[in-house]
Amino acid sequence: MTPDLTALADIRTLAGSLPKPDDASIEAARARQDQLTKPPGSLGKLEEIALFMAGWQRTERPKIDRAQALVFAGNHGICARGVNPFPQAVTAQMVANFEAGGAAINQLCRANGADLTVIPLDLDRPTQDFTQAPAMTEAETLAAIRTGAEAVDENADILLLGEMGIGNSTIAAALACAAFGGAPSDWVGAGTGSDEAGMALKAKVIADGIARHGTADPLMTLANLGGREQAAICGAVLAARLARVPVLLDGYICTAAVAPLYAEDPTLLDHCLVGHASAEPGHARLTLAMHKPPVLDFAMRLGEGTGAALALGIVRGALACHNGMATFAEAGVAGG
Amino acid sequence: MTPDLTALADIRTLAGSLPKPDDASIEAARARQDQLTKPPGSLGKLEEIALFMAGWQRTERPKIDRAQALVFAGNHGICARGVNPFPQAVTAQMVANFEAGGAAINQLCRANGADLTVIPLDLDRPTQDFTQAPAMTEAETLAAIRTGAEAVDENADILLLGEMGIGNSTIAAALACAAFGGAPSDWVGAGTGSDEAGMALKAKVIADGIARHGTADPLMTLANLGGREQAAICGAVLAARLARVPVLLDGYICTAAVAPLYAEDPTLLDHCLVGHASAEPGHARLTLAMHKPPVLDFAMRLGEGTGAALALGIVRGALACHNGMATFAEAGVAGG
Repeated sequence: MTPDLTALADIRTLAGSLPKPDDASIEAARARQDQLTKPPGSLGKLEEIALFMAGWQRTERPKIDRAQALVFAGNHGICARGVNPFPQAVTAQMVANFEAGGAAINQLCRANGADLTVIPLDLDRPTQDFTQAPAMTEAETLAAIRTGAEAVDENADILLLGEMGIGNSTIAAALACAAFGGAPSDWVGAGTGSDEAGMALKAKVIADGIARHGTADPLMTLANLGGREQAAICGAVLAARLARVPVLLDGYICTAAVAPLYAEDPTLLDHCLVGHASAEPGHARLTLAMHKPPVLDFAMRLGEGTGAALALGIVRGALACHNGMATFAEAGVAGG
Repeated sequence: MTPDLTALADIRTLAGSLPKPDDASIEAARARQDQLTKPPGSLGKLEEIALFMAGWQRTERPKIDRAQALVFAGNHGICARGVNPFPQAVTAQMVANFEAGGAAINQLCRANGADLTVIPLDLDRPTQDFTQAPAMTEAETLAAIRTGAEAVDENADILLLGEMGIGNSTIAAALACAAFGGAPSDWVGAGTGSDEAGMALKAKVIADGIARHGTADPLMTLANLGGREQAAICGAVLAARLARVPVLLDGYICTAAVAPLYAEDPTLLDHCLVGHASAEPGHARLTLAMHKPPVLDFAMRLGEGTGAALALGIVRGALACHNGMATFAEAGVAGG
């Protein structure tokens, strides 16, 4: 369900009218959990995940028949400042690798049963260097949001989001810093392979970008400092919400991509879980600030949606227990 | 491969001659990882897991075609002391639930592709109350070890271990306390549902058991304080090692079951990973003492092998990436 946006400020209006989780379904699911053959609460976070899914799917028995994975790719003008040791051509090369089935995300989608679609966004037309100009015009940002939104299958039972884009760990740090403050260096990590000098450069570039554009309007910050894949991720998150599809975000880049939405209104992300804790040092700070404890923590820092795809297996396990277990009465076990 | 044991002390002799991981396979697997289309190390712990599997399977390309899950069940004389709010009959009821496919472990084995076998051990003949006598004779302990060992499929690619036994969180705390010292209360948690008074009673009972039997001989401690499912888990771990089958242990009960082996010789467990961090408070202390950081942490405390079965999905994901990803050269991606 593509949101009807003619300006970024329309997201502000949209926020008040979005679907909420269904409390009756959550209560019914909780009542079911209390009857399953296990000590109460002994499946820990698996039980919380099942309730989360119940609320968004509006049913006591949430399921995953169709898991959709979307990976958005973009290129960034900020690379002109030397923030990444790899050439921007790698973005398109990795898109080809995704399409040929050779990347990590292909293997993890296959292993965990997700249908992967890769969407490159104008790779031959990088955004502007945000130290010199807004990264994107409002119209370009809205176009990328629309592309992301239109890619969402409204009938999916869960949506996984990932990204690829040389230079986008700098974009992530800029968006996180703009949304939550602190020094740029608080949000900067090695990314694909920056050394100390490279990280210092990233921090300097972010400081210049924030000084130029300010941070007063979180939604305009997405245009000023973001990239097309970040805007597309925001669009997919909004479209999923309108269709009540729960979302697994990936790691640092993906979480930072939706930081402008959080800064605008935290409830915009109520239907989103963060799939894993990235090894990028800014991610722990970011997930704490956004009250989104990651599902997994394997010190991964690859992006592509790999942490979300791995977390899908956990959600599947949670629902397998929730739906498949016998109740005390059914099993003739004492203690219910 | 059933170890040839005529006395518990034979495990001491066995320890020196066990298979070790194959360094050449690990190095070949590492060299492969360095060529895959990702920044070096960016799959974090997934890469470590793939190397672990490579070493034990003695191949650059470890696989999981057959995952075997074994759940051992036993009853405990210590229940006569009132350490558990549920009757011992629940152990057999839960075994029936496993056999009917209604328990959490059934769902998680199905979701993650493991073949489950449940092995009840003389449920109508509980062990002795260890405050009054050794829980098991040496012969009974060896018999349970043999049952566990014989259940292992030497052709499995990975073995998952779990347990069921009313009262066995007290057994776990006793074995952990005997192996690693500290106060009994350091190792005691709520188990299936003990309150404060119940936990104090558990600690008292453990102190009595340790005072009676001492802890000088770790292997005799397994007989003195353990149970049949704990001995069977030790037997399965040893048999898996002889067949070079890597093992996923479950949570607190399972890790504590092999604490006597660790106390005898830590290398006995080199082929074992701990699947998840249990919410039982003693487990964090135990995995730290045994240098076995758990794969997952979902605040689960159900046992049955549920944490091991959930971790199997992560191991599958690690191997899917390791085997399925394209190299830089294959994909035509710069940066290799």
